[in-house]
Amino acid sequence: MSNLQVLLVAGTHGNEINAPWVFNQWKENQDLIDRCGLKVISVIGNPLAFEKGTRYLHRDLNRSFSLDLLNSEKNTDSEISRAKQLLALYGPSGQNPSQIAIDFHSTTACMGSSLVIYGRRPVDLALVSLIQNRIGLPVYLHEGNSSQKGFLVEAWPCGFVVEIGPVPQGSLNSRIIQQTFQTLKICLEEISKSITSKSCFPEKLVVHRHLKSIDFPRDSSGQPIAYIHGDLEGKDWQPIKNGYPLFEYLNGDIVNLCDNSFIDEVFPVFINEAAYVEKNIALSLTKKEVWRFDDCWRDAFYALINS
Amino acid sequence: MSNLQVLLVAGTHGNEINAPWVFNQWKENQDLIDRCGLKVISVIGNPLAFEKGTRYLHRDLNRSFSLDLLNSEKNTDSEISRAKQLLALYGPSGQNPSQIAIDFHSTTACMGSSLVIYGRRPVDLALVSLIQNRIGLPVYLHEGNSSQKGFLVEAWPCGFVVEIGPVPQGSLNSRIIQQTFQTLKICLEEISKSITSKSCFPEKLVVHRHLKSIDFPRDSSGQPIAYIHGDLEGKDWQPIKNGYPLFEYLNGDIVNLCDNSFIDEVFPVFINEAAYVEKNIALSLTKKEVWRFDDCWRDAFYALINS
Repeated sequence: MSNLQVLLVAGTHGNEINAPWVFNQWKENQDLIDRCGLKVISVIGNPLAFEKGTRYLHRDLNRSFSLDLLNSEKNTDSEISRAKQLLALYGPSGQNPSQIAIDFHSTTACMGSSLVIYGRRPVDLALVSLIQNRIGLPVYLHEGNSSQKGFLVEAWPCGFVVEIGPVPQGSLNSRIIQQTFQTLKICLEEISKSITSKSCFPEKLVVHRHLKSIDFPRDSSGQPIAYIHGDLEGKDWQPIKNGYPLFEYLNGDIVNLCDNSFIDEVFPVFINEAAYVEKNIALSLTKKEVWRFDDCWRDAFYALINS
Repeated sequence: MSNLQVLLVAGTHGNEINAPWVFNQWKENQDLIDRCGLKVISVIGNPLAFEKGTRYLHRDLNRSFSLDLLNSEKNTDSEISRAKQLLALYGPSGQNPSQIAIDFHSTTACMGSSLVIYGRRPVDLALVSLIQNRIGLPVYLHEGNSSQKGFLVEAWPCGFVVEIGPVPQGSLNSRIIQQTFQTLKICLEEISKSITSKSCFPEKLVVHRHLKSIDFPRDSSGQPIAYIHGDLEGKDWQPIKNGYPLFEYLNGDIVNLCDNSFIDEVFPVFINEAAYVEKNIALSLTKKEVWRFDDCWRDAFYALINS
């Protein structure tokens, strides 16, 4: 059997409580989810924030895994300490090393169940291809955004985020719990199958490639002065074109999508995610692309799991 | 003209940001909402919590207006100080006295637009009758719940809460903003009309009278071990009967409504309000009652606004 160990993380943001709740139920009843023969570790990403019901104490843990922050001696932020601790415990060179990290989040946006990858690591592309081929989840490829970096899963050789919504922060929700539960089981099944060489890689991978993020219109003090247009609300993953209404002012004025660099339709994601207001993101735009599955992704993935 | 002054409050809970946003837009553009000739003061209830994006700093401001807390000398909670300050400034015997207080909230529950009154003050019943008669909003009569007291509007001679949802905490939402905006305008119009004796009181008032609140099933450490059943989610104001599923466990077990004191159907409200988990409330049950409008309500209301 492979030495592969999978790290499952929930509550990287302390107010996203559905995945931590599933993890805690699983801890109480080990039979709830079949480990499929895998070595699995499940942890609460930010237990101090989870305890307080806030996203974080000092800074976003899921932007705290950049090398400059991890190498900083002086920074005493709780989340930098936790990032270092997680790596020391379960990092690829940690005490109890894991090679794959899957980080379970929830969002206030209508994202359904979806996967997020950071850049184009062949191992990530191989693994999300397996999951997309099994249950069809959309894949958001986050890249080329220098203002957002230091994501947790980037510090492991392979990994991705599971984003499920919509759900308010701090709220247990039947649908979100079921989707988290099912996605978690599928992830373990697909990784397990890949070890026993029963994986079914597809011919194609559909990605929604990050193009840009758009901020709210704001006043001179930085406060939003318009809100997401009602027609756009809940339209994550649905195509829009130039001229589509993005924002609305209380007096009825409208801001439409207007970007001549878009020749064709674009696909918005993370529309109105509550936690992104402070990051100056009202929504992100993606381009839908269909990529031919590259055998080198599979080879890299097999090399990792059999290393 | 009457000496009546109306106090409008938003952001009594600092993470319910839609009404404060409307208030701030109104401040920037005084013509946005017609005051209808009324003297009106609009304030952010808990500005420190609003600044931090949290419900409160030390304790719930909207449970801080009980006499024992207001009379306490030793309590240094930020919200007790703010409650005293609001009363000193705008209370019925304050520097700039207001007689009616309307407190605008949002909720993660699917409450739509609704009004909440605390007890059966004739003046409140008269005013919500006017608003219900105009736009049909449901009225939740909160009474007989000794564990929940000290609501802001109870400290003014007349007042009620406007609750609008569903919306995640910390999230601006087109629908919620529009509903807040419209309800605010209607409130001012109806109060103004009552001063000029053009009010149209109805023959009946429909109330949803509080019966009881129900908590999540919890483990010995106090954590919820089941979640609101998917069939109940979003069913605020819709009738349910004994046997209806309330909670669901991850293993599929279900807890049904079972209370032999209910002869007929009951109407759940505040289903899965995120902020109520800490108050041990998963939902509340109400009984729908149709009350004949009592002229003494109108007389008491006229006496107040013409005093």
